[in-house]
Amino acid sequence: MIKIDQSDLIKWLEHVRIYANNGKVVDYIPALANQQPETNAVAYYPIGGELIFTGQAEYKFTIQSISKVISLAVALIQHGDQAVFSRVDKEPTSDPFYSVAKLEVEKPAKPFNPMINAGALAVTNMIRGRNSEEMVGEILKLVRVLANDEQVTYDQDVAQSEYETSFLNRALCYFMKQHGVITGSIEELLEVYTKQCAISMNVKQLARIAAVFANDGRDPDSNEELIPPDVARICKTFMVTCGMYNESGTFAINVGIPAKSGVSGAIMGVIKRCGGIAVFGPALNEKGNSVVGIKLLEKLAAEKMWSIF
Amino acid sequence: MIKIDQSDLIKWLEHVRIYANNGKVVDYIPALANQQPETNAVAYYPIGGELIFTGQAEYKFTIQSISKVISLAVALIQHGDQAVFSRVDKEPTSDPFYSVAKLEVEKPAKPFNPMINAGALAVTNMIRGRNSEEMVGEILKLVRVLANDEQVTYDQDVAQSEYETSFLNRALCYFMKQHGVITGSIEELLEVYTKQCAISMNVKQLARIAAVFANDGRDPDSNEELIPPDVARICKTFMVTCGMYNESGTFAINVGIPAKSGVSGAIMGVIKRCGGIAVFGPALNEKGNSVVGIKLLEKLAAEKMWSIF
Amino acid sequence: MIKIDQSDLIKWLEHVRIYANNGKVVDYIPALANQQPETNAVAYYPIGGELIFTGQAEYKFTIQSISKVISLAVALIQHGDQAVFSRVDKEPTSDPFYSVAKLEVEKPAKPFNPMINAGALAVTNMIRGRNSEEMVGEILKLVRVLANDEQVTYDQDVAQSEYETSFLNRALCYFMKQHGVITGSIEELLEVYTKQCAISMNVKQLARIAAVFANDGRDPDSNEELIPPDVARICKTFMVTCGMYNESGTFAINVGIPAKSGVSGAIMGVIKRCGGIAVFGPALNEKGNSVVGIKLLEKLAAEKMWSIF
Amino acid sequence: MIKIDQSDLIKWLEHVRIYANNGKVVDYIPALANQQPETNAVAYYPIGGELIFTGQAEYKFTIQSISKVISLAVALIQHGDQAVFSRVDKEPTSDPFYSVAKLEVEKPAKPFNPMINAGALAVTNMIRGRNSEEMVGEILKLVRVLANDEQVTYDQDVAQSEYETSFLNRALCYFMKQHGVITGSIEELLEVYTKQCAISMNVKQLARIAAVFANDGRDPDSNEELIPPDVARICKTFMVTCGMYNESGTFAINVGIPAKSGVSGAIMGVIKRCGGIAVFGPALNEKGNSVVGIKLLEKLAAEKMWSIF
Repeated sequence: MIKIDQSDLIKWLEHVRIYANNGKVVDYIPALANQQPETNAVAYYPIGGELIFTGQAEYKFTIQSISKVISLAVALIQHGDQAVFSRVDKEPTSDPFYSVAKLEVEKPAKPFNPMINAGALAVTNMIRGRNSEEMVGEILKLVRVLANDEQVTYDQDVAQSEYETSFLNRALCYFMKQHGVITGSIEELLEVYTKQCAISMNVKQLARIAAVFANDGRDPDSNEELIPPDVARICKTFMVTCGMYNESGTFAINVGIPAKSGVSGAIMGVIKRCGGIAVFGPALNEKGNSVVGIKLLEKLAAEKMWSIF
Repeated sequence: MIKIDQSDLIKWLEHVRIYANNGKVVDYIPALANQQPETNAVAYYPIGGELIFTGQAEYKFTIQSISKVISLAVALIQHGDQAVFSRVDKEPTSDPFYSVAKLEVEKPAKPFNPMINAGALAVTNMIRGRNSEEMVGEILKLVRVLANDEQVTYDQDVAQSEYETSFLNRALCYFMKQHGVITGSIEELLEVYTKQCAISMNVKQLARIAAVFANDGRDPDSNEELIPPDVARICKTFMVTCGMYNESGTFAINVGIPAKSGVSGAIMGVIKRCGGIAVFGPALNEKGNSVVGIKLLEKLAAEKMWSIF
Repeated sequence: MIKIDQSDLIKWLEHVRIYANNGKVVDYIPALANQQPETNAVAYYPIGGELIFTGQAEYKFTIQSISKVISLAVALIQHGDQAVFSRVDKEPTSDPFYSVAKLEVEKPAKPFNPMINAGALAVTNMIRGRNSEEMVGEILKLVRVLANDEQVTYDQDVAQSEYETSFLNRALCYFMKQHGVITGSIEELLEVYTKQCAISMNVKQLARIAAVFANDGRDPDSNEELIPPDVARICKTFMVTCGMYNESGTFAINVGIPAKSGVSGAIMGVIKRCGGIAVFGPALNEKGNSVVGIKLLEKLAAEKMWSIF
Repeated sequence: MIKIDQSDLIKWLEHVRIYANNGKVVDYIPALANQQPETNAVAYYPIGGELIFTGQAEYKFTIQSISKVISLAVALIQHGDQAVFSRVDKEPTSDPFYSVAKLEVEKPAKPFNPMINAGALAVTNMIRGRNSEEMVGEILKLVRVLANDEQVTYDQDVAQSEYETSFLNRALCYFMKQHGVITGSIEELLEVYTKQCAISMNVKQLARIAAVFANDGRDPDSNEELIPPDVARICKTFMVTCGMYNESGTFAINVGIPAKSGVSGAIMGVIKRCGGIAVFGPALNEKGNSVVGIKLLEKLAAEKMWSIF
């Protein structure tokens, strides 16, 4: 059991904010390109305790790839793990998250895991709904339960901007459609996918979502089951093996907790049986992870001597 | 100079038609799947001589990848070689014609040559026209001049069928759009591309087109220039280095003439300064080339001791 | 904390031994090809408790790739993590463990992690010693301390057999030598490497080694530090992200403990703060992992509800 | 038929020698690194005519990859094309000449063609001889006949230097040995291979070798058959499809004659039924071809309007 208090958060953020200078705000998604590198925030939601936070904790960002964990949870709840893993594999890969090359080489053309774009698109393709609005609704429903906030929704501008420019994801979708991994309308699927990526919240809300995973799927306050424990465990396993893009192995050694990042600059981290942490800082390193976020979590791991390994 | 007469054609076709049993009609394009493997034909159009032919010489097939030579000629005429080769490279590749993997690895994401699908799509993307109909019109205009037949057009059913199922080509297009190799509407481009592939003719017409190339771009009857000699030469060079899919090197050794095949089962072959030959037989080998076509051209090369090398 | 007693081991092994029929003894290493698929054993070494075991627990096997964990520990102890990770990266890969392809594509040609052959060879290349015998001595020294048995050594016949047939490892070595990742004599390096792979022991000894990792590097009986805790933690992290070949991600979901397998059919598993487990069964699945070993550890995870995630 | 006289050679070399500034002498082969970029020469050997030349025509260089054509001819003469092409394929590739990656992906692990290193090594491995000296002897025997000079031999220093540093070729050899493409002693094979690459001559001798190919395998003076015509044709076909490394397709368009280059800076070009040309200039472009050589041959093609296509 580790204990984190607000003075820790303040000290850590103070110490690492300077590293924002080493990173670069993502530029290939027009709607994210104007984020300010000096915007930073961190929040910690302990199980059965009081939320603490520092920095611009009200600032809303889109969760981007962090949504892959949520859509995976929805698909696992709706279809079970056997059905999901008949469409997407469970193995980490050293290829970049946007890669199509291996889909061509490997037979069958099954995406390696649900944390790379191809796999996440295949997972979202499984979510139930008669149309894109219903499919997005399923994802939002779970996000709102986890964040305990009915107001959480997606940012229409960011979703639209990503929808219009996601040529690579369209390429992945058509490639998988050719091989039967994805079915139905690609445009509808991309609408759902860009909306799930554009779900918008602040670090306080994201920390609460992480806290549910830390509590094995149960509400950190009421202890009520929000996600089945097996689904929570599977999601956390993927966070460890492939949650931090092509830096997952390094992060596992340097920090050692389940975590998922998004190119907006957010990271959620899961401290088993303790609580959930969320860090935001839009300056990214070359792997696509928040520089400030990584540094802060390394600091946490070093000071609290915490690792699942 | 070699001399081919009708008894040659009859003898060769008689000899090789049995090999159709070793091949398989293409099955991934619904509109081509019902072609009969026993349909075979060959025609030879000598420069300044009389067209000869045998087999089902009136049977119309779609030219498929053979159209890549025509669209390349149109683009070279319209834009010059420098402009064209700024978008597509000139090198043969051992990757399959539908491959996307190398586009991802190589920087910049330039297709290797205009005979693989990615390169052919990039070339068609350059053809002038305010809309798809005008762009198709430019290609048809040249085809009609070369075939000396104003009636040549595309098969609407085949075009529509390929348009609806060309997920892989859509994947290639979106991938190239992401990297700036292709611009504009992908759906419009695919409309043009599937129509050029669906241009329909018989072996007599195709042999005349080949004869123009054999005559360095000039009409085989009137000797009038139909294509600039440099454009004809460039097209023929690509036919040698990459005209027969991943069997181009083997074909160069076994036959040794510029040739281009299509998955419908057609092959056009160019006998420099002599004439053009066209063979049809829809049973394909595993590389996607007409079994009967390859065998007949090997027979021609062996008997007439002809090779450009 | 979980509790495993001998009746568990007996029941589990009884239940899973039948799965040996689904696997195949490795055939590309002549000296291993005559192992009997029905040979099975399991041992559990609890921290501060009594070793328990069942099956052919005296049977000696060579540890093969399990030795990669030991040589990594030796290199980390001798050189520190910065030096080691300047030569080999920390990321899991979806490529096979014997792959050279990515070394060519990625610049610099740094192996992805120390659990694939390329990475393990680069790590062994770092071990101190004036000659191969001294280098092997360094590895044996640590193995003997961990197994608490001065008699542990390598099987000369297996080492020799692997040395003579390891063309692929020679290819990897020369490739890395070209790129400066490996230095010195390749033949000497391969001598060390094939000897470390040929280190021979039974499940009781292997379980004790696992128990040291479970105890964060300390002796499971005396609690004395045998490996620095950071080294133990890094080794365990690699066991989770890449310890089970291209099945590591699946194993993490289905079992969820640090583990390392070898193609002889052995697996060592680490149950944090509880104990070390070793299973042997030479029939391998297509990924190269012991079928019986995997099944038994899945049973343990399911019954004891244990996972680090 | 084209006619080239000495004033052509002088004018062309004068015109293109300046381009040496755009290139770089090869640096990864120690024994070649001290070649002077301003050393240039060209020679033309017309069939049934008088040898002409200009520049440092006595300067001796090692032929490097040009030897791949000679060893292929030896293997074809000794074993026939069926036996040779059971070991190496006939297809050009877009991969670099030193690449191992595709050997791993493709099954079986057959090198794409005899002009890439893997394929050339597999071909040399077929040459008859009880030991390396006899194998080298077979290659030298043919070289001497073609060059009509019994004194031609290999440069011992260059051979030794390449032998000691050819880690990449060793990697290729061991990889192919693993897959049964290569048999016997790798060190012996590399001894033969580095000696064939180190065969040393000047442009006058190399032009005569090219002239034999231009004369379909017959002596350019006596018209006696030195190489069977089919072997000469196959060699020339490979020169067109893969003779100029990853620039072969571009060279085919820009120049359009069979040619083979070596990283020493030599190129031999074959003008069918006319004669053989050899150019030397050690400054290489990024593909590994002599800058001056390429430019001079482009000039020849443009002025004489010559292309096989």
